[in-house]
Amino acid sequence: MSDLETMVRELADRVKLLEDRQELHRIINSYGPGMDTGEGKSLGALWAEDGVYDYGVTTDENRVAEGPAGLAAMTASAFQLEMNDEGCAHIMSMPVIWVNGDTARATGYSRVYRHSKDGFYVWRLSANHWEFVRTPDGWRVARRTNRLLDGNPVARELLVKAYDKA
Amino acid sequence: MSDLETMVRELADRVKLLEDRQELHRIINSYGPGMDTGEGKSLGALWAEDGVYDYGVTTDENRVAEGPAGLAAMTASAFQLEMNDEGCAHIMSMPVIWVNGDTARATGYSRVYRHSKDGFYVWRLSANHWEFVRTPDGWRVARRTNRLLDGNPVARELLVKAYDKA
Amino acid sequence: MSDLETMVRELADRVKLLEDRQELHRIINSYGPGMDTGEGKSLGALWAEDGVYDYGVTTDENRVAEGPAGLAAMTASAFQLEMNDEGCAHIMSMPVIWVNGDTARATGYSRVYRHSKDGFYVWRLSANHWEFVRTPDGWRVARRTNRLLDGNPVARELLVKAYDKA
Repeated sequence: MSDLETMVRELADRVKLLEDRQELHRIINSYGPGMDTGEGKSLGALWAEDGVYDYGVTTDENRVAEGPAGLAAMTASAFQLEMNDEGCAHIMSMPVIWVNGDTARATGYSRVYRHSKDGFYVWRLSANHWEFVRTPDGWRVARRTNRLLDGNPVARELLVKAYDKA
Repeated sequence: MSDLETMVRELADRVKLLEDRQELHRIINSYGPGMDTGEGKSLGALWAEDGVYDYGVTTDENRVAEGPAGLAAMTASAFQLEMNDEGCAHIMSMPVIWVNGDTARATGYSRVYRHSKDGFYVWRLSANHWEFVRTPDGWRVARRTNRLLDGNPVARELLVKAYDKA
Repeated sequence: MSDLETMVRELADRVKLLEDRQELHRIINSYGPGMDTGEGKSLGALWAEDGVYDYGVTTDENRVAEGPAGLAAMTASAFQLEMNDEGCAHIMSMPVIWVNGDTARATGYSRVYRHSKDGFYVWRLSANHWEFVRTPDGWRVARRTNRLLDGNPVARELLVKAYDKA
């Protein structure tokens, strides 16, 4: 293999990594538009078949949604639909992403903003840790873990993973 | 054309797409710093000559600003200048971007935070859909549409476009 | 040098710039997870040895933290630890980044959200200007300047740098 070909192959690997990170951002930032509109099928398709969303409802209560169907069901709950009718936004911070071959992780924050007759307000604030897997159809969410930033020490255990490259 | 040359040309196309997305993020994230400082000429230059900003003032009232001059005028309104003097931030979420050749779209959220003697608060929360066009001078905004997330169903119609690749 | 080799070298420069911007985003988005968890050593390591964090506490009072040790000390203050126990999030907006060889700048917003028994709220809202330097160990923060968006005109002087490519 010529020196130039070696250079091109190394460049191709670097370009792939750049693309991977942009695609993982796309997936993360697609969550809100799915949840806030009830677009359950599209939102669910971000998850792997055996993917999980493990979320904190309160400091003491966590719930798990499983696979595309479980995520789609979340968007169709009476509670979520009522929030959407009042005005609601699930917004992610720009997370720290680490890609390792065919798996990847992202660490950041999410906020749920809501609307009431008194105006807009921050309803929930959470730490988020995402795990991804590269499938034949592209990147999918293997696990998202979310805990309220209400002093829950588990939320801080999630956040600190931003510094963990492995 | 040699195999290696083919590989390099394909790589060049992928690099161009990565650059396009980074540049579109730059444009979107330049909006706030223009509006919150009254830098109307710079903010206006993000828009195409025939570009439009179609924004919801309330659920029932929308307004349109046209072209760089129309955008610059928004930054110079007495209302905006008073907000800036009190403390104000137009902050975009990281949007989902789809590039198709020489046009592109982005879908996300915006929030306007304000300051009063009682502290900081979320004044407005909106769904945003951006359309871009590649001009000889680079990417420009062709149309930004913004609707309050106060239950307005049109806001949800904008948000769901995050899943529309076309 | 062949035409193809020239093309590859130009491509390598463009890829490096894309990587630089992604890495600078990573650094900026690592700040919150360090501050909100007390991970002082990791957070400090984002800064250059002679790096500075110059931040506004109120409109009239600014403070400076110096180098990795100074940043680490911030995360260990009784005040910050108490905020973390109550629930706290330092969240950055996606900033505008300009890279110039071995230095770079980023301009954007930061918010500190806190939790109290009445729920979550926006405690602080600031304009941010970051300066970076490329060291043998990678990009590091040379200076971060932060001013409250409470009408302080210096905050607006920072924000408008988003349009300054130089």
